[in-house]
Amino acid sequence: MKARIHITLKNGVLDPQGKAVAHALESLGYAGINDVRQGKYIEIDLAKNDADTTRETVERMCRDLLANTVIENFTVEVG
Amino acid sequence: MKARIHITLKNGVLDPQGKAVAHALESLGYAGINDVRQGKYIEIDLAKNDADTTRETVERMCRDLLANTVIENFTVEVG
Repeated sequence: MKARIHITLKNGVLDPQGKAVAHALESLGYAGINDVRQGKYIEIDLAKNDADTTRETVERMCRDLLANTVIENFTVEVG
Repeated sequence: MKARIHITLKNGVLDPQGKAVAHALESLGYAGINDVRQGKYIEIDLAKNDADTTRETVERMCRDLLANTVIENFTVEVG
């Protein structure tokens, strides 16, 4: 079963990578950029067939390794 | 108007970052991991009100800067 994980910085946490992307886009001539935030997207294919246990396992993976929950939020979609 | 961009490696392109995540999860005791693929997730807030021109602009940004279209696919959601 596949799980898709989005990991994003919490509101209020500075995002230098996003700022760098915004500046690079502006230097290429793009105008009207209010904000850019960069996060991570991870797809995990697990040898499980049950959506609930897959979600529970993947959320545990996020807390254990994938996300820094002090500064990052994560969302998990299963299916 | 906000746009959400997913940038993922094309099928067949090696993903060492995903492999590293898979090994790290296995060393933490997680079993049954078939595959991990890591991509990027970018949110851009643009000073535009029209969904079509926003999508067109953001797709141009992806081709110009954000994605390496030789090895990466990108998808854009607007709204």
